[in-house]
Amino acid sequence: MTTRRPRVTSTDVARAAGVSQSAVSRAFTPGASVAPKTRKRVVAAATKLGYRPNAIARSLITRRTKLVGIVMAHLTNPFYPPVLERFSRKLEEHGRRVLLITLPGQSHGDAALPEILQYQVDSLVLTSATLSSAMAEECARLGMPVVLFNRTASRSRVSAVCCDNEAAGSLAADLFLDAGDRHLGYLAGTANSSTNLERERGFFDRVAARKAPKPKRAAGDYDYETAFAASRALLAAKSRPTALLCANDVMAFAAIDAARGLGLRVPRDLSVLAVDDSAMARWRAYDLTTIRQPVEAMVDATVDLLLGLEEGRLTGSVVRRLPGELIVRSSVRMP
Amino acid sequence: MTTRRPRVTSTDVARAAGVSQSAVSRAFTPGASVAPKTRKRVVAAATKLGYRPNAIARSLITRRTKLVGIVMAHLTNPFYPPVLERFSRKLEEHGRRVLLITLPGQSHGDAALPEILQYQVDSLVLTSATLSSAMAEECARLGMPVVLFNRTASRSRVSAVCCDNEAAGSLAADLFLDAGDRHLGYLAGTANSSTNLERERGFFDRVAARKAPKPKRAAGDYDYETAFAASRALLAAKSRPTALLCANDVMAFAAIDAARGLGLRVPRDLSVLAVDDSAMARWRAYDLTTIRQPVEAMVDATVDLLLGLEEGRLTGSVVRRLPGELIVRSSVRMP
Repeated sequence: MTTRRPRVTSTDVARAAGVSQSAVSRAFTPGASVAPKTRKRVVAAATKLGYRPNAIARSLITRRTKLVGIVMAHLTNPFYPPVLERFSRKLEEHGRRVLLITLPGQSHGDAALPEILQYQVDSLVLTSATLSSAMAEECARLGMPVVLFNRTASRSRVSAVCCDNEAAGSLAADLFLDAGDRHLGYLAGTANSSTNLERERGFFDRVAARKAPKPKRAAGDYDYETAFAASRALLAAKSRPTALLCANDVMAFAAIDAARGLGLRVPRDLSVLAVDDSAMARWRAYDLTTIRQPVEAMVDATVDLLLGLEEGRLTGSVVRRLPGELIVRSSVRMP
Repeated sequence: MTTRRPRVTSTDVARAAGVSQSAVSRAFTPGASVAPKTRKRVVAAATKLGYRPNAIARSLITRRTKLVGIVMAHLTNPFYPPVLERFSRKLEEHGRRVLLITLPGQSHGDAALPEILQYQVDSLVLTSATLSSAMAEECARLGMPVVLFNRTASRSRVSAVCCDNEAAGSLAADLFLDAGDRHLGYLAGTANSSTNLERERGFFDRVAARKAPKPKRAAGDYDYETAFAASRALLAAKSRPTALLCANDVMAFAAIDAARGLGLRVPRDLSVLAVDDSAMARWRAYDLTTIRQPVEAMVDATVDLLLGLEEGRLTGSVVRRLPGELIVRSSVRMP
């Protein structure tokens, strides 16, 4: 066994630091008022003595664990790591910690529910399209605050925060048509995900409203290799599109690589526009024009909703759609 | 307040599922023996009744929280998301959960220690070069099992798992020299990180041992933009290297982009080799030859060490160095 020393109490720390016991308690309570100098002395004494304030025992009194479960299935999609990082920092500002829950692949999301509830997180963020709305409803029924991030649930009363995906699709259509392109293409993400459905609807509806020919569609599943093969097929066809909307950045990188492999120049022979603005969009090989999802504002809004639900300030459900922003680089021929 | 129903007990669940109370308990204990059919009935009854087995209360009895803290500072480096995902899945197999602790930027790692200890994780994985060895020693002193991941600590008795970085540097030198290159370059990662120090030492020592000219060195800080500027300066110089080792993939992408911007062809005018094998190494724009870090084996070894330390099977410290593997794509002129 790892040796564990006799338990050091907050009284021991207070004595060593020359402060009151209540000052020790406040020094370890996120958000509590304590002078920086006092906190420093308490932390120094606590570290020296090996004091570990017991968040677990405290949670039994407050019935709060201060843990927020974040369910993720697509950490390798470069959109998500900055999201997770922002959640961690933002929740920390509110004295919360992130319990990370990853789901294997495309299935079995709902099977994880009993285990997730076992950990008694105070609330849950669901980022994965693989978790059914039924699961979100179930959590809400059990009194567990839940917010969907980067997705919505149709016919559900669960709160959600996402980018205004339909407006993004619509903007893309206007941009291409205004630049004189008539032969458009759409490289779709995972077919049944709300992000893809909304972007696709916004794009196709706007093109139809402007009486331009219906865009050709290929399925890229939000994945580089799938998108590479799909866009190569699309671009090698006799009547290929001259402007392509990709439902995320990663698929746009694949489309650009596929276009170049076929001898097409971007944007001269093919405009490529995406949605995300991940870090790689700035890499010189791509220099991607893309509609930025407002990650920071989306995370902040999610945290606000979660805390509002936890604290009972908020009742019912809220769906917030935040506007994307066109970031102009060099992969689109501009109007 | 969020409404919480009257507490459902395991007895209620046992009655509803028609099984013994002990079967309910086993169904919710990771690793415990229970027939899949029984488990299914228990879970169905538990979900229906809104039963949440109390992991927190249980931890007060066992003195284990089953939480493993993972400290990360560089989630946006594409090396780390798959690492985190693997940790989450692997630890889950052992009934553990990941408490994610992110550190802001390059500093203040040690300041987070008291708060980290407050959460009473059973053990800690430190992945960040920003946490001092002193902190790792301090955790060990407090009886908290700690393993360093992808880094080592000099003059420390803390356990660590990493790639054999020195061997990777040495392999790179042999590869370039065997291909006839004599003017070599090294694009360094964060100067004081153990990964960079070891890769650099392996590379320079081997070049010296083979009596080739000392490689030129530029500082890329493991960052695309820094590496882009540094490699452009290096490659625009009169006596530029013809073969470049980059201490990670992201810097190699920057170096390739910088080389192309200067009209150099990769690998004909410049061989570019890296260490990592991140997902983007396969992207057609780069098709990067790189030394793969054995991420899965590294994570598995770290989990083994952690559990060994937690359970007292392991005493003292262990440093495991796992061999990298050369993945040949098209960015290096091969011997």
